[in-house]
Amino acid sequence: MKIAVLGYGTVGSGVVEVVKRNYDNIAKRAREVIDIKYVLDLREFPGDPVMEVLVHDFGTIVNDPEVKVIVEVMGGVEPAYTFVKEALLKGKSVCTSNKELVAKHGAELLEIARQRNVNFLFEASVGGGIPIIRPLNQSLTADEIEEITGILNGTTNYILSKMKDEGVDFEDALKEAQEKGYAEKNPAADIEGYDACRKIAILTSLAYGMQVQYEEIPTEGITKITAADIRYADALGGSIKLFGTSKKVADKVYAYVAPKIIGSKHPLYSVNGVFNAILVRGNVLGDVMFYGSGAGKLPTASAVVSDVIDAVKHQGVNIMQLWSNKKLELEATKTLKNQFFVRVPATEREKAEKLFEIAELVTLGGLEEEFAFLTTAMKEETFEEAAAQICVINSIRAEL
Amino acid sequence: MKIAVLGYGTVGSGVVEVVKRNYDNIAKRAREVIDIKYVLDLREFPGDPVMEVLVHDFGTIVNDPEVKVIVEVMGGVEPAYTFVKEALLKGKSVCTSNKELVAKHGAELLEIARQRNVNFLFEASVGGGIPIIRPLNQSLTADEIEEITGILNGTTNYILSKMKDEGVDFEDALKEAQEKGYAEKNPAADIEGYDACRKIAILTSLAYGMQVQYEEIPTEGITKITAADIRYADALGGSIKLFGTSKKVADKVYAYVAPKIIGSKHPLYSVNGVFNAILVRGNVLGDVMFYGSGAGKLPTASAVVSDVIDAVKHQGVNIMQLWSNKKLELEATKTLKNQFFVRVPATEREKAEKLFEIAELVTLGGLEEEFAFLTTAMKEETFEEAAAQICVINSIRAEL
Repeated sequence: MKIAVLGYGTVGSGVVEVVKRNYDNIAKRAREVIDIKYVLDLREFPGDPVMEVLVHDFGTIVNDPEVKVIVEVMGGVEPAYTFVKEALLKGKSVCTSNKELVAKHGAELLEIARQRNVNFLFEASVGGGIPIIRPLNQSLTADEIEEITGILNGTTNYILSKMKDEGVDFEDALKEAQEKGYAEKNPAADIEGYDACRKIAILTSLAYGMQVQYEEIPTEGITKITAADIRYADALGGSIKLFGTSKKVADKVYAYVAPKIIGSKHPLYSVNGVFNAILVRGNVLGDVMFYGSGAGKLPTASAVVSDVIDAVKHQGVNIMQLWSNKKLELEATKTLKNQFFVRVPATEREKAEKLFEIAELVTLGGLEEEFAFLTTAMKEETFEEAAAQICVINSIRAEL
Repeated sequence: MKIAVLGYGTVGSGVVEVVKRNYDNIAKRAREVIDIKYVLDLREFPGDPVMEVLVHDFGTIVNDPEVKVIVEVMGGVEPAYTFVKEALLKGKSVCTSNKELVAKHGAELLEIARQRNVNFLFEASVGGGIPIIRPLNQSLTADEIEEITGILNGTTNYILSKMKDEGVDFEDALKEAQEKGYAEKNPAADIEGYDACRKIAILTSLAYGMQVQYEEIPTEGITKITAADIRYADALGGSIKLFGTSKKVADKVYAYVAPKIIGSKHPLYSVNGVFNAILVRGNVLGDVMFYGSGAGKLPTASAVVSDVIDAVKHQGVNIMQLWSNKKLELEATKTLKNQFFVRVPATEREKAEKLFEIAELVTLGGLEEEFAFLTTAMKEETFEEAAAQICVINSIRAEL
């Protein structure tokens, strides 16, 4: 079995390494020896053994009938989309880690794969090395999915963990994440929640079998979270995490990305650092959680290669994934109920007590000019309305 | 698609309920409507709608060509083994939650299924509703599995959590577990670790593709754990859990069941109450963890029904599971390295300091006549040798 890898960046070189390192075991699992015939990249890599299989022209790969499975790990929508579509149309299976591509064109590419009786697989597009796509498709099938909530972005989780553990401010934690290579120089995709947004869009599309437009998911990042917020959360016995969430309530599906304070009993409370975890709630199964390395060269490559093995085992058989191009109409989140953590100036105490049903009140040493409180669960729109009438320093959703 | 259910106990009635409750969704996932044609049980259930499909004779089911998938949820080796074997030989797929059956006869039944081109599936046999069998077979395929460590028994985890939270002794916690229906009247299978032993045998057989004889797995339960041990563990910042573990070290496979003190950074630290969780370490993937309800009527039934859906989707196609009847020779655990927590009389202090490399020393109020210490990592045989020379009140493996 000959395969090709599009892109020799972090994940691509990881795929080459995993295929080499676990060669025998992979052959046993796939029932065939798997060899990489081509690696596509525009760059040269002098001295790297990859040079023996490096090509610069996608045509060489897609027109080679010996190549039956193509790994796409270039990232970004183009030219990935053009390449993947062409490969599928030519009857080759494609395995990708590319969340932008999957979130935007998943339904269409799955449909082409179905028609050509090949496979379009994307385990690595969400949660890095954590098995979540295949479990959603093949294991959690007896349930109606009621909720998916995930820590889907390792960079932001690293930053928030750092802020909590060391009391540093957002900017300093971000800088350290960048120095350690956990965050990009342009960190917007992570810290503004765009990455988590694409991932929850993919999971929601798969859970309900319809296309979620990720542009329609209300998305809030972590740039507004300060060291003081973290201290308050601590005082409340909670921890701030960035979640991608979708919920089904009486046939209506909600989805959003936002930071939230959760308590120590929450299954995702102890997910720290660059780890990711995804909680899935089924109507008969209850809660299951999947935890692991959400990114990183080898864990992500491991997930990609598990897809390659699946594609090799399923030659001529399309693995069904329920995800039609019918659009899933998301409900506005304003009717969702949440608790809220709110900071207001100390002078607003009386007003706050009139406007909100307060579950808990906190003051912190060194922050005498303000106080914070936790509301009981209330509709988002009701909260917005009340919050507009008072001077709010910061507010964060909570589940405590 | 007509299926039959063998056994109308807790899980069997759960399967009937799940098939009814999620009927449409199941049909969508299976690409066929699934109906229960027979339920086999020796008892009568007057007034229960199950009476319409209840039969007392297995022959009715196995000789009905319309029945293509059989669910076995009777438990125990016989008559389950005879029924399942006959069903597979007659070309019917079987889905089971029966860990005794799978641990003892898994390799043989998988081989018959392979020969007849049907499927023998057992997702519910380990971890109840947690997807772990299918991920091991289909998701973690690009890795060499280096370790599997699981909290595999909800009853013992409930008892240990109770002892920790309320400071009660083992006997009281067990009694409460029995009153709440979490423990059997004869609790030996749970508290002596036999249940966890069968489950780690199944996981290890699947991970390495060979038959593990569960009788050969050193198995220690939790009956020796006292309220004092829990207090000491607390003082060390740790928590006692019962683990089923297998490890591969340089081509040697070790497996054992034993309680262990783990620290708060361990991914399984916060798995409390009746929940189960399984940590799998791959050579390229790193750690992944699966968490959820390890038992219970509906979660277990959900896993069984997900197998039924898989069997229906794979008619005429055998889903490969690597598990040959070749025996996996387990290494003796005496060469494994562990830390140990040890309690000895206060008078033995000098001796203890000579015999062991002590990492930490603890004394507790009210227990002035003794003290406890934590060793550095040492071979089990070295520990046994040293421990034989001193009066040990209790000792527990540790990873702190």
